[in-house]
Amino acid sequence: MPEQWLGSRLMKPISLHAQNVQPDVSIYECEVHLKFKLIEEQGLLTDQEHLLEFLLDALSCGSDEYLEMLSVRTNASEVPDTDASAEMRRQLIRLRNSRIHG
Amino acid sequence: MPEQWLGSRLMKPISLHAQNVQPDVSIYECEVHLKFKLIEEQGLLTDQEHLLEFLLDALSCGSDEYLEMLSVRTNASEVPDTDASAEMRRQLIRLRNSRIHG
Repeated sequence: MPEQWLGSRLMKPISLHAQNVQPDVSIYECEVHLKFKLIEEQGLLTDQEHLLEFLLDALSCGSDEYLEMLSVRTNASEVPDTDASAEMRRQLIRLRNSRIHG
Repeated sequence: MPEQWLGSRLMKPISLHAQNVQPDVSIYECEVHLKFKLIEEQGLLTDQEHLLEFLLDALSCGSDEYLEMLSVRTNASEVPDTDASAEMRRQLIRLRNSRIHG
């Protein structure tokens, strides 16, 4: 919501305003560890190459009578930019520049 | 075409015919363990309640300049029906019945 963002930006004191135009994106190291039971046709889950894609697709529908979640562990921690690949760092710079100049 | 159906049914060896109408769905115990780096706005990943939903949504786009996969572990193993909840077992029975009679 750029308009909302601009509105709140203009109403804030200068110090806060300066803070608002500071880059607001970061790199996070994330972990997702899930165990679940799934009803599926035999043979469909043997394709190791597409197994992740298939399971993510099943998970996107959430828990129902076909999928029973057993355990969920998620984590997301901010890490220094230098921990990321050159490609991600370049993308981060592009995003920050577009926030400052865009 | 009951006659044709009966004909083809009678022409098949009993073992193969039996195999064709056998239920073809099973219960799988699945595990997905992912580690990845993600570029995201600060503050968006602090909502623990919706973190899984958010991360699955990010993962659904695959790896790109915003998401760098670090490690992937997936597994899917068939388990006995009795390992699943009553609700899943009922659904399994419905699916098998619809395959036999549908």
